[in-house]
Amino acid sequence: MTYTSAALFIIGTELTRGVIADKHCQVLASQLTQLGYRVDRMVQVPDDGTIADVLKDCIDNCDLVVLTGGLGPTSDDMTRSIVASLAGVPLVRDQHTFEALYARIGERIWGANEQQTMIPQGFEAIPNPNGTAAGFRGFIPDGQRQIACVAMPGPPREMDPMFFDQVLPWLASLIGHDDFTRSEYSTFLIPEAKLEELCKSVTFNGLQWGTRFQDLKISLYLVGGTVDERSRMASDLSALVGPSLLVEGDAMPVELLTDLLISRKETISCAESCTSGYVAKLLTDQSGSSAWFWGGAVTYANEAKQAMLGVQEATLAMHGAVSEACVLEMAEGMLLRSGTDWAVSVSGIAGPSGGTAEKPIGTVWFGFAGKGRKSEAVAVHLTSYGRESVRRKASVVALILASQYIKGASLLDTVHKWQYI
Amino acid sequence: MTYTSAALFIIGTELTRGVIADKHCQVLASQLTQLGYRVDRMVQVPDDGTIADVLKDCIDNCDLVVLTGGLGPTSDDMTRSIVASLAGVPLVRDQHTFEALYARIGERIWGANEQQTMIPQGFEAIPNPNGTAAGFRGFIPDGQRQIACVAMPGPPREMDPMFFDQVLPWLASLIGHDDFTRSEYSTFLIPEAKLEELCKSVTFNGLQWGTRFQDLKISLYLVGGTVDERSRMASDLSALVGPSLLVEGDAMPVELLTDLLISRKETISCAESCTSGYVAKLLTDQSGSSAWFWGGAVTYANEAKQAMLGVQEATLAMHGAVSEACVLEMAEGMLLRSGTDWAVSVSGIAGPSGGTAEKPIGTVWFGFAGKGRKSEAVAVHLTSYGRESVRRKASVVALILASQYIKGASLLDTVHKWQYI
Repeated sequence: MTYTSAALFIIGTELTRGVIADKHCQVLASQLTQLGYRVDRMVQVPDDGTIADVLKDCIDNCDLVVLTGGLGPTSDDMTRSIVASLAGVPLVRDQHTFEALYARIGERIWGANEQQTMIPQGFEAIPNPNGTAAGFRGFIPDGQRQIACVAMPGPPREMDPMFFDQVLPWLASLIGHDDFTRSEYSTFLIPEAKLEELCKSVTFNGLQWGTRFQDLKISLYLVGGTVDERSRMASDLSALVGPSLLVEGDAMPVELLTDLLISRKETISCAESCTSGYVAKLLTDQSGSSAWFWGGAVTYANEAKQAMLGVQEATLAMHGAVSEACVLEMAEGMLLRSGTDWAVSVSGIAGPSGGTAEKPIGTVWFGFAGKGRKSEAVAVHLTSYGRESVRRKASVVALILASQYIKGASLLDTVHKWQYI
Repeated sequence: MTYTSAALFIIGTELTRGVIADKHCQVLASQLTQLGYRVDRMVQVPDDGTIADVLKDCIDNCDLVVLTGGLGPTSDDMTRSIVASLAGVPLVRDQHTFEALYARIGERIWGANEQQTMIPQGFEAIPNPNGTAAGFRGFIPDGQRQIACVAMPGPPREMDPMFFDQVLPWLASLIGHDDFTRSEYSTFLIPEAKLEELCKSVTFNGLQWGTRFQDLKISLYLVGGTVDERSRMASDLSALVGPSLLVEGDAMPVELLTDLLISRKETISCAESCTSGYVAKLLTDQSGSSAWFWGGAVTYANEAKQAMLGVQEATLAMHGAVSEACVLEMAEGMLLRSGTDWAVSVSGIAGPSGGTAEKPIGTVWFGFAGKGRKSEAVAVHLTSYGRESVRRKASVVALILASQYIKGASLLDTVHKWQYI
C-alpha cells in the first residue's frame, strides 16, 4: 500500500491546559511534508483515557500516525496500552530495552519504570539515548489496511534526536525512498522561502530536502541519493547563496568565529552602534567566552563614539555615523583601546525611523581591524522585516564577516555573493 | 446545558506543511482552562475541503468549538461555509460588517472580499478592527444539543485582540461567569508556576485569573468580581511578590525605565559584565532610543573593566569582579565617562562554570550612580535555569532596579521583597 496521508498525535495535558506550547508539530510537519507525506491533521490531546477514540479516528482516516508523549512511567502515561489495544495485541517486555534501562538505573527499574520496557507485541522498540522511555514503531491493522504507527517520547530533547536519527529513515522507506541517507548543513541569513526556492532550482536525480528553522540559523537536510550527489547539490546551492552562508554540519554563526579564535588562540573586541550590544551578547552566549572575548563599546550616541572610541567629530560631521569612515575609526579605536588581536564594528539604520533615500533602513556598515592588518569596511543592505530583524541580521553578518576577515578573505567578494539576505 | 468540554480547531495549510508554527493553541488553551473549560482536543488541519469531517467529530464530542483561520477572501478559505453547512443554515450577508468593510476599502469590496461579509444565518458577527475578515459566533444544533461555536481570523494580530476583547467575555458567560470583566497586569521575573500558586493563595469571592507568557514578562488577567475586588487581589499579590514586579496594564520591563527617563528628560548609560550587552540591547529595542540611551561598556574581561571604566586593579584583586566594590566603580566610571544623568552596572556569575560556595551561579551584583546622587549597589541571587536564563533575568533586574534607584526607592528594601525570582 502507499502511505501518503499522515496524522500527528501529540499527547500532553500540559499542552491542552496551555501550560506549555507544543514544540513538535512544526518540526514533524515540515519533515513529513518534505518526504512527500500530506499531513491531514495534527491533534493535541490530554494525557488521559479519552484519547483512544480520537486516535481511532486518525487511524480510520490516515495511513500513518506519528505519536509523541504519554510514554513516561506515571499511571497517566498510557500511549503504549492504547496503541496495543487498537492493534489488538498485548504489551510485551522488550528485552533489549529492559537490559539497557537496567544498565542505567539498576534495581530502580522495578515498579513504574518497568512499564517503560513494554511495547505492543509485534512492534519494534526504538532506543532512547536521552531518556528512560523507549519509542516503538509498527503497524495497526484496520480492516484491509495496515496503518503505520510510531510513538516517541514527549520532551523535545528526547524526541528530536530519536526522530531525526531513527524515525525519519523509516518514514522515508515507507513512502518509497530507498536507502535513506541524508546530510546536514547550516544556513545563515537566507529567508526560508528563498531557501526553498533555491533548493528547488538546484535539485536533481530526485534529491529531497528539509529545513528546520532555528534561532539565527536554518538547518538544511539533503535527503536521498549518494553522498556525492548531496554534496554536489550543496555546492550548487552554496554558489547561489554565497559560500559563507552555508556550512556543513550543525553550527551556529557565532561558532564560525569563536572556533577560529580558539584555534588561533586570539581575542576579539567589538564596537557597536545600531546592534547596541547584540554582537557582544552573542559572543558570550557560550560558557568560557573569556577565552576569546575581551569586551566592547556600545556607542549609540555620536558622543559615545567620540568618547569611547576616539571617532573624530569631523568624520561624523562629514560622513555621518553610518559610513565607511566611521566604522573604520570605530574598529581601529576599539583595537587600540582593547589590545585584542581583532576588533569588529557595526553602524547602521535599524529603523523604523531614520532611513533616507541614500541610506535606507537596513543599510549597515561593518568595520574590521587587526594587529598588523590593514583595516577594512564593507556595507550590506539588509531587507528589513522590522527593527529587531535588522539588528539580529546585522549581528550575524558581523560575526560571519569577522571570521572571513580573520581568514584573509576579500570582504567585498564575500558580500557581493550575498544576493538573498 | 453546561459547556465544559472544549475543542480548538486551528485551520491553515501553512501549519500542516510545517511552514509556520501555531501561535494560538497555548493562548486559547490557557485562557479556556482558567475559565473552567476542559480542553479535550486541539486540532490543526489544512485549509481544504477535508476538514468538514474532522470538525463534525469535534462537534459530536465537545460542547464548545473555537475555530481560527480559513476566513480570508481566497477560495481556499472555507470556514464560514463549512460551519453554515454543519449548522444547516445558509450564509447571509451581515449588513454591519458589509458597511464597515465598505467604509474601509470602498468599491474593492466587490469580488473576493464580499465573501468576508457573509456569516452563517443566526450567528452573530464579531467586528475585526485589525483586518478585513469579521469573526462570528453562534450555536450548531446536534440532536438535542446546541454546540457553541466561535470563528476568528488566523493572523495573531487579528485573533488576539478579537479573542481577548470580544470572545472571552462570551465564553465566560457561557460557562456561567456573569458580568465578565477583567483587569490586566504585567509581572516580571516570577516563574509561571509560582505565580499560579500565589494567585491561588490570594484569590477570594471566586475571582479567576489567567496568565499569558511573553518574552521577558507574564501578563496576568484577573477575571470576574468588581474592579475593587480585582484591585484588592492584585495588591495582595503585589505584597507577596514585591510591588516592583507587578504593574498595572500592559508594560515591558524596559518601559518602566524608559518612560521614567522620557518624562524626566534624562539619559542613561550602562556598564555590563555577565550580561555582556543584553541591557544595552534592551534599552534600544524601541525606536527613538537615542532620546534616553547614550551607550555603554561591555567589560567582560577584568582588563576591560580597568581600561574602559577605570576599575582599580586592587579592587579586582581584593574583592573580585562580582562584588559591591567592583559594580560601584563600574557605575561611577561609566557615569563619569558618559556624562549621562544615570549609569547602571552589572557583574555576576552566569554559569554554567565559575560558581563557588560563596558566590554560586546566579549571584549578580548591580551598581547605580547618578549626578549628585550617592552611588548604591545591591546583590541578587537568581535561581539558575541555565546561562541564558540568568543573563536575561539579570538584565531585567538591572532595568527594574535602575528605575527604583532613579525614583529614590531603597534598593535593599526592593530586593528583600523579591522572594520568588
